[in-house]
Amino acid sequence: MKLDGKTVALLIAPEGTEDVEFARPKAALEAAGARVTVISLTTDDAKTVSGDLQPAGTHKVDAKVADVHADQFDALVIPGGTVGADRLRAYKDVVSFVRTIVEQQKPVAAICHGPWVLVEADVLKGRTVASFPSLQTDIRNAGGTWQDREVVVDSGLVTSRNPNDLDAFCAKVVEEISEGRHRAMSRSL
Amino acid sequence: MKLDGKTVALLIAPEGTEDVEFARPKAALEAAGARVTVISLTTDDAKTVSGDLQPAGTHKVDAKVADVHADQFDALVIPGGTVGADRLRAYKDVVSFVRTIVEQQKPVAAICHGPWVLVEADVLKGRTVASFPSLQTDIRNAGGTWQDREVVVDSGLVTSRNPNDLDAFCAKVVEEISEGRHRAMSRSL
Repeated sequence: MKLDGKTVALLIAPEGTEDVEFARPKAALEAAGARVTVISLTTDDAKTVSGDLQPAGTHKVDAKVADVHADQFDALVIPGGTVGADRLRAYKDVVSFVRTIVEQQKPVAAICHGPWVLVEADVLKGRTVASFPSLQTDIRNAGGTWQDREVVVDSGLVTSRNPNDLDAFCAKVVEEISEGRHRAMSRSL
Repeated sequence: MKLDGKTVALLIAPEGTEDVEFARPKAALEAAGARVTVISLTTDDAKTVSGDLQPAGTHKVDAKVADVHADQFDALVIPGGTVGADRLRAYKDVVSFVRTIVEQQKPVAAICHGPWVLVEADVLKGRTVASFPSLQTDIRNAGGTWQDREVVVDSGLVTSRNPNDLDAFCAKVVEEISEGRHRAMSRSL
């Protein structure tokens, strides 16, 4: 399969990650043959939401971000959820993990409020991204170009606006990861 | 009383505003003699949260932001809540209302995630503010200086980090509003 032999890091916050933005990319990656490692701030089960505020489900966590290294992974996926993304960006271990993945020129995907973590890691200078529209000012202020499109692919960086974009997002995530490293990923650093 | 004759606009999102960051400033303003007008995107009751994700209460809305003008108010207060503040900043009517209040050099207060609305209105250039720590990069990228203090007062602009700062926040909000217009408010525009 397209992603045989690839290991993908999938972030989840202890609470507030948007359920479908976690579960659907996970399913798409596994269906394409990837091994997915779910990473959070602790190894307690993560509680997800639907539409930002409704409780949705719980998901097992494979590893703490403090216990993993970017070397172990071929790519990174960051789901949204307003509260979840806000929680993730607040942890230095998350931010340095994301930055190292980018330094290693590995594909990164983020959807909805997930790109806040890319703002925090300061990896958007000169990059073009989509996101939930409320983030567009933060993205421009971080040096990025914001587009209102269902999926934006900027050599290795895949971003989308909201759960309605998940079909296009998941397809491009698989495609970019299958291509391997993208030298352009580190040009923003 | 200190705020007799003053009318203060207090924003609330349809959902996701942090309950105590709305209710306690409202009570403090009213106790000081101010008339408080609760403003939202619609006139439906607003549903608040506690700790970002737990349902907390419902609050009556006095006016839609599209139906009011900055001329009617002496000051503005913006509560937090991750989802609530994210919702508020996404509406052009909210952003232009906030900007006009600043142009009119009237005091503005924001707590926790509330300063995102000030980032969106582009009124933070050269200003010093506190906020929930996850916003610090967005505030710096918008041209502001971020401080980790319970309350920061920058001539007419009052900001705090989280609900634990409400005593200091409410006291400074009343003080700054009692002083009236601050010419420095519009120096960031």
